[in-house]
Amino acid sequence: MSGNNWPPKAAHPEDAGFDKPHLVIVGGGFAGLTLARRLKRADINITLIDKANHHLFQPLLYQVATAALSPGHIAMPLRAIFRSQKNVRVLMNRVGEILPKERKIRLVSGDEFSYDRLVIAAGARHSYFGHNEWEKNAPGLKNLSDALRIRQKILATFEKAEAMLAIGKEDKAELTKLLTFVIVGGGPTGVELAGSIAEIAHHTLRKEFRGINPDTTRVILVEGGEHLLMAFPGSLGKSAEKALTRLGVEVRTGVAVKNVMFDGVQIGDELVSTANVFWAAGNTAATLLKTLGTPLDRAGRAVVGPDLSLADFPEVSVIGDAAHAIDASSGQPLPGIAPVAIQQGQYLAKKIKAELQAKTMPPFRYWDKGSMATIGRGRAVAKIGRAHFTGLIAWLMWSFIHILYLVGFRNRFAVMILWMYGYITNSRTVRLITADDL
Amino acid sequence: MSGNNWPPKAAHPEDAGFDKPHLVIVGGGFAGLTLARRLKRADINITLIDKANHHLFQPLLYQVATAALSPGHIAMPLRAIFRSQKNVRVLMNRVGEILPKERKIRLVSGDEFSYDRLVIAAGARHSYFGHNEWEKNAPGLKNLSDALRIRQKILATFEKAEAMLAIGKEDKAELTKLLTFVIVGGGPTGVELAGSIAEIAHHTLRKEFRGINPDTTRVILVEGGEHLLMAFPGSLGKSAEKALTRLGVEVRTGVAVKNVMFDGVQIGDELVSTANVFWAAGNTAATLLKTLGTPLDRAGRAVVGPDLSLADFPEVSVIGDAAHAIDASSGQPLPGIAPVAIQQGQYLAKKIKAELQAKTMPPFRYWDKGSMATIGRGRAVAKIGRAHFTGLIAWLMWSFIHILYLVGFRNRFAVMILWMYGYITNSRTVRLITADDL
Repeated sequence: MSGNNWPPKAAHPEDAGFDKPHLVIVGGGFAGLTLARRLKRADINITLIDKANHHLFQPLLYQVATAALSPGHIAMPLRAIFRSQKNVRVLMNRVGEILPKERKIRLVSGDEFSYDRLVIAAGARHSYFGHNEWEKNAPGLKNLSDALRIRQKILATFEKAEAMLAIGKEDKAELTKLLTFVIVGGGPTGVELAGSIAEIAHHTLRKEFRGINPDTTRVILVEGGEHLLMAFPGSLGKSAEKALTRLGVEVRTGVAVKNVMFDGVQIGDELVSTANVFWAAGNTAATLLKTLGTPLDRAGRAVVGPDLSLADFPEVSVIGDAAHAIDASSGQPLPGIAPVAIQQGQYLAKKIKAELQAKTMPPFRYWDKGSMATIGRGRAVAKIGRAHFTGLIAWLMWSFIHILYLVGFRNRFAVMILWMYGYITNSRTVRLITADDL
Repeated sequence: MSGNNWPPKAAHPEDAGFDKPHLVIVGGGFAGLTLARRLKRADINITLIDKANHHLFQPLLYQVATAALSPGHIAMPLRAIFRSQKNVRVLMNRVGEILPKERKIRLVSGDEFSYDRLVIAAGARHSYFGHNEWEKNAPGLKNLSDALRIRQKILATFEKAEAMLAIGKEDKAELTKLLTFVIVGGGPTGVELAGSIAEIAHHTLRKEFRGINPDTTRVILVEGGEHLLMAFPGSLGKSAEKALTRLGVEVRTGVAVKNVMFDGVQIGDELVSTANVFWAAGNTAATLLKTLGTPLDRAGRAVVGPDLSLADFPEVSVIGDAAHAIDASSGQPLPGIAPVAIQQGQYLAKKIKAELQAKTMPPFRYWDKGSMATIGRGRAVAKIGRAHFTGLIAWLMWSFIHILYLVGFRNRFAVMILWMYGYITNSRTVRLITADDL
């Protein structure tokens, strides 16, 4: 591996093999994946490190958590994606520390790597606002393990309730606790999760139990802000609330969660007894960023300049959910959403190619193509420019765009069929739990 | 729930609700599922208990273990299957003990159920021939958790080997250990597993690594008997061996595994260094059967009479892999395979309906429709009556029959498409492991 040769001394390094400049990308999410793919023809060596072996289509993760899709439908092995892109080497590993002065990264195993150019696209985890002890009772939804854990929890709770009645041990308080679901956070993930759980309880499972009546399930969605989907205009938040209410979700806005216990949650002044709390509020960037020693924002994201690089280390860039980048149009920090991550990956690919030729690039500009969130089967809200859409038309737009983005994934055909089938029949066929889960 | 009213006093019990005779079925595999479905119109209450919430299409389980299918493709929630069969109540729970004298079953929780009629279809686990300590180093393949554990082990081993080279820590002995797979047991599961692992190493992963060469992977299949597929004629075993050898599998027959350690396996006099041993040899019936206090065979299966019931307790039947039943034609014990389980479920449904009408039934007779085993993509062996088939024709027969059996599963269409796609492209898209697995 080469040391300290960035920016490359020659505009076109002629050296072969390991003497080519070495770009290390940490994270194979939307940002890191887009960057690596766009550098297909760059004459450099790329090492892409991720702690999982797959890229995850995160916008559909809640569908795995709610048993509508299998993990295999929304994840793709990174090695398969880069099979024929010979300048990329994939490494499944955890990065423990970054040593920017030495241009090295240290794996958790203690082994070190040197880089010439580094891009951190390590994403974010949920933030528990200083109450990390809540996590064990209120799991979040960021990766496949999270999704399978939530799926198991949702399904096992109905089984437990049914078993209680079958053996003649009816305990009304316990039953209420089991059949109450609380989702904290009224952003897109919280809205999608609440809508899906309500559909499972009130439609999918309705005729499948002989003891309990899943239709009596309570689903409560809590949002601290004044309306749902705070990133959207208030009218769309209201529209989402109406649609969720029709699905049987109790929406509580403008109220904060004050405590999460193993058997309940404190919402404002009210104590709700529940065995099922799911967390979809707030983000905190990967803790890895702390090891950089450069400024972070309150959410732990690395503060980057207009070219997405660190002021102190221009050969280090941070993109995606891990970056605090300012939107050139609005002067506000860019949100942690897939379109921002993808555009930042695209920009940085161009910039790195420019650096290789000792050229400069204008600053990054985010082009807001609009945003959308689904609520349930055939219901969504969307904002494109100044136009707002709700209901079936928004859902069809959402479906179309998400299928489009899955292009490049070999399994998109199966996803489409499962979707169409699921939409027609409202079935959830991936409702699998094993004895290990009880 | 009713007590001791089997055989029912009246030919057609007129009583409603809980006064109907209560049939308890332990296990929702092929035997238990077939029985419950065939009793759709019987005027009894049925409780179907399984420790998982799904029925599993076990003949395709190795395809989940080898990343060709998702769990959702071969499993179906039991509740969904029995949604509209109102006389069946599904209970996800573990049975700890059977008290045949009291006509009760005791759950591991200590709670008890009474039954009027009991059918045990609890299946089997792998037998380690008295060496249960081998299990942790040589996992078997019986349920979805097993399959996901094996999938993770196969995929993670290549990642570990690649990581070793990437950080410049090449250890030749360690590399050999990681890239050696040993499968113990040359029955259908062992043959399918060995063939699939060879395909993964030599085809699927071939171009995906930059450090290691997956093509150097050794796959060794060990069978104690004199040829592979001992349940088939020797010529088909030889044909399977030839096909496996062509796929790059080293086949060792007539030699016993003497020890399994965490870093190797003793095959006869040879010590093979390997981090990956998978067990596909021998069966032992569910330990639950021991609590019956009635005769068991050497494999722990309950010895049943010609009508599949226990001599001491005619209201208790055992079917499927848990039963030691004699084949009326050959005088030999019936093998633990899906067709036997299904036919026993069908027979017992008829018998229980006869019992309800105080009629008698002739003994169970197994109709051998033939048997088949796959070896790899487009290769299989089959025996139908006296005719033998090998190669593509046998594989097409195998595919056709397995797709046919999946009828009734709502996801059969997706499975078909994935199969067709997988056959054309030799891709394995479900190659997902998370950091938790490393």
